[in-house]
Order: sequence, then structure tokens, then C-alpha cells
Amino acid sequence: MLPEDALVSAIARAVGPPSGGVALGIGDDGAVLDDGTVASTDVLVEGVHFDLARMSPRDVGHRAAAANLSDLAAMGAWPVALLAAFGLPPGFEDAAEIAAGMSEHGVPIAGGDLSRAPVLIVSVTAIGRSERPVRRSGGRPGDVLVVTGELGGQAAAGYAGRVTPRIEEGCALAAVATAMIDLSDGIATDAERLARASGTGAVVELERLPRAPGATVEQAAAGGEDYELLAALPPGAEPPVPVTVVGRLTAEPDVLLLDATGAPRTLRGWDHFA
Amino acid sequence: MLPEDALVSAIARAVGPPSGGVALGIGDDGAVLDDGTVASTDVLVEGVHFDLARMSPRDVGHRAAAANLSDLAAMGAWPVALLAAFGLPPGFEDAAEIAAGMSEHGVPIAGGDLSRAPVLIVSVTAIGRSERPVRRSGGRPGDVLVVTGELGGQAAAGYAGRVTPRIEEGCALAAVATAMIDLSDGIATDAERLARASGTGAVVELERLPRAPGATVEQAAAGGEDYELLAALPPGAEPPVPVTVVGRLTAEPDVLLLDATGAPRTLRGWDHFA
Repeated sequence: MLPEDALVSAIARAVGPPSGGVALGIGDDGAVLDDGTVASTDVLVEGVHFDLARMSPRDVGHRAAAANLSDLAAMGAWPVALLAAFGLPPGFEDAAEIAAGMSEHGVPIAGGDLSRAPVLIVSVTAIGRSERPVRRSGGRPGDVLVVTGELGGQAAAGYAGRVTPRIEEGCALAAVATAMIDLSDGIATDAERLARASGTGAVVELERLPRAPGATVEQAAAGGEDYELLAALPPGAEPPVPVTVVGRLTAEPDVLLLDATGAPRTLRGWDHFA
Repeated sequence: MLPEDALVSAIARAVGPPSGGVALGIGDDGAVLDDGTVASTDVLVEGVHFDLARMSPRDVGHRAAAANLSDLAAMGAWPVALLAAFGLPPGFEDAAEIAAGMSEHGVPIAGGDLSRAPVLIVSVTAIGRSERPVRRSGGRPGDVLVVTGELGGQAAAGYAGRVTPRIEEGCALAAVATAMIDLSDGIATDAERLARASGTGAVVELERLPRAPGATVEQAAAGGEDYELLAALPPGAEPPVPVTVVGRLTAEPDVLLLDATGAPRTLRGWDHFA
């Protein structure tokens, strides 16, 4: 288990199981309330997630919103609104630019909060709705693993490019997927998260990963920040959107990344605490 | 207008008016979606909002959740879930304690995010529901201004004490209030915010402020962090919970704080950017 995941587990133990109006709590891409509301929150920290020498405030806002909208997409939820909480360092005057970048996804910013802070902090919450939220935990042995789009492009581009959350694809896949997760940290990490949550193992064939132009296999598997979707589909299910088959869930508990010769490789996705 | 409020206005202009499924956007205590979902987000920053030498991680979590639950209370919304996004400095190992403090209000934590950060960052989002969300903007000249509880206690205690968001009181007052706001920055600032949003002036009689034990008039008016509610009630309306009448909204645009002699006083509430 990654350090970040271990810490999330410790917090989940501290606060106990979900109750009241909460259908699904800590540990998935988003939280699910009883009424079908799905919500996700992220905090981006200057010097950890971004560098203002390499990304504009508008790009930071775009990226922060994309990360949360991608979490909603991974639940099959359609976004309704964003909330923004900014911590602004002395002399920083581009808060409106961050908000403008957030708005470029077409989801309205409905509220927020401002504070001073020693470095720029951008915390975004996305709120959406789903008739049938897809969890990480519904996968079964034999399910086919598929991904949207191409992988490794962010790593190949130095993480400075823009990303598009797969909102429509996620809502379409939700009709057939047994489990889904967004590829924020790389399939090497996120496939393991999906399999562990589903109580299965997994095999991912590295040669089958759809690589973005210029991306290595390692970048496609472990570069992270692509915000594509990884879904488990029942065998024979017809994907409603274009996807690439990259592996399958297994009854054996191991999560294996296999190279072209069938030999297992060890690759690790991004961990903010590693 | 306070610097923080000016910045909020700049952001609101940058992102445009609310659209889609958003009924009420930037500038109120919480955002209101078309389906009655109400959401509020805050970011608390170590060294700005709290000092770990004086507050335990559990107290910080309790306070962060209280601030957002108070925003929901000010809309008359009943809370359903909390989301938590933490930025954790090197060596900080009490994230579960922050979550435990958040949980003490009885509202489940449904999800969150973790990151590294140079100082401790605690961003909380509260999500609730309201049949009839109360805005800041519905007040009318002649409405009576009332507050819950006592004011100035946090300032008198050095801001280290625990606060109780007025959830039940807010939901009860929502049945009669024309406008409502929570007293996070002090009535000197928050009464002006309510009046400006309502397009009215206001008179607050400082001698009528219900002072917490040990609190001065200045602390009661401008100390902030009390998280009591300020509501505007139509003349003759029967308050459904115990409140103290402290003033009224006026047709004249001035917002006046009057001392015992009827002379206006100048007091400023807390501004994180001042």
C-alpha cells in the first residue's frame, strides 16, 4: 500500500463508516450522498503540484478543476457546480485568473473562500449528480480492463499541458462498467487501487497501453496526471465510447504489469507522500 | 468595501453570473444548486487562521468544520456531509486527529484529499440541503435585526475556544427570516454585508449586543469568529428560537453602529486581507 493510501485508511478508521445521508464515503474518487449527489475535493499546493514559473494562474485553475471533474467522471456523475477556496501569497493578484481557468470547463463556479497563505493554495470541490454512481469496488474476476484516450502524454510534456476530464465518457461508461477510477497517478498505481477495492487481482499488459505521442511505456504506466479513465467491463459488454482493452481483473490477488514477453515489471505511479 | 470582498467581486466578474444548475453563486454564505443542495467551502491556513502551538490538530478540525457548518446554518440548510482536503507539512502525523475533530459535530466525513504542503492546510467543504435557502439579499427596510447566542466570546478567550455552529437555529429561523448571515468576521462587518446585499442600510445598537462573559463591546461587535447568526425578520414576526434584537434595516443606505448616546461608532470586523 502506498503511504498516501495508508494515511487515507487511518483517517477512515478515525472517523468510522459513513452514516446519515452518505451512501459512499472515504476511499473512492468521490463521495456519494443518498440523493445521488456526488462530490469530490482536491487541494493543489504551489511547489508540490505546480510551479508558477512553468504554469500560469489560469493553467493552474484549469488543472485544479480538471482533477475534480475527472473524479466525478470516474463515478459516472455529471458535474453541476464547482467551489473554489484559494490561499493567496503576499503580492499575488491573479485570483480572478485562476477562477477564469477553472471556468473554462463550462461548469459554473458557485462559491468559494479566500485566505492569505505562504504559498498559492488552490482547493477545488466539484459537485455533480449520478443516477447510478460507479464505485471502484464493483469489479469481478474476468472483467475486462479498458482505458479512454492515450496515456503518458503529461509525463512526456513535462506536466505543463492542459488535460480534459472525460466527463461524457465517464457518464457513458457508467451504464456498463462494474468499477471505474480516473488515472490521476498512473495505471500502475490506479489499477492496483481498483483491484484492491474490488477484492480481485489484475493483469495489465504494458504493450497494450495506448501511448500518447512521445511517451514511453514507463510514462504511460506510471507518469500520472493523464486524467483518463480506467474501467472494468463485464466480459462481452459493448463499450459505449472508444476505449482500449489493456488487461483484466483476476481471481488471483496479485496485480501484475506484464511486458511483451509476459514477464512482470515493477512500476510505481505518483505518490504525493513518497 | 473590504479588500477581501473586493477580491470576491473581481472573481465573480471574471467567471460571470451563475448558470446551469446553480441557483445562487458567489457572494453568499453558501452556493445553492437548483435541487436544493447547499454547499460551502473554506480553507484554513496554519499561521493565518490557527497556530498549532495554541490549538491541537483536533481543535483545528473542529473549528474548520464549524466554519462551514455555520455557513450552511446561515442559509437555513441542514448538513449532510463534509469533505476534507488536507495539506500536510513534513513530519506532521496527526491528519486522523484533524478528521476526528471535524467529526465531532456529528456530520459524516464523506471524502477528501491529501497532499504535502509547507504549512498545515485544512480545506473543508460542507454539503447540505434546504427547502427554502435564505440569502443575504432578501432583507427589506424596517426588518428587525436579531442575533443568536452571545458575541465576543472568542475574542475574549483569545480565539482558542470551541465554537458551535447554529444549525438548528438557522434551520428554524429560515422559516421567517428575509435574510441571514453568519457572524464569522463580527457584526460590524457582517451587518454591512447583509445590508449591502439587500440594498438597504442598517442600524445596530451596540448596547443591545448580547455580550459573552468578559467580552467588551468592541469584541462583541468586531472580534469575529463567534459563528452566531444575524437574521433579518419582518416586523412583528415571531422568532422560532431565542434571539436578541440588535437593530433594524433602514431605507437610508448608511450602515451605522450606534453607541448608548446614539452616536455612530466606527468599528471594523476581521478581514483576512487587511
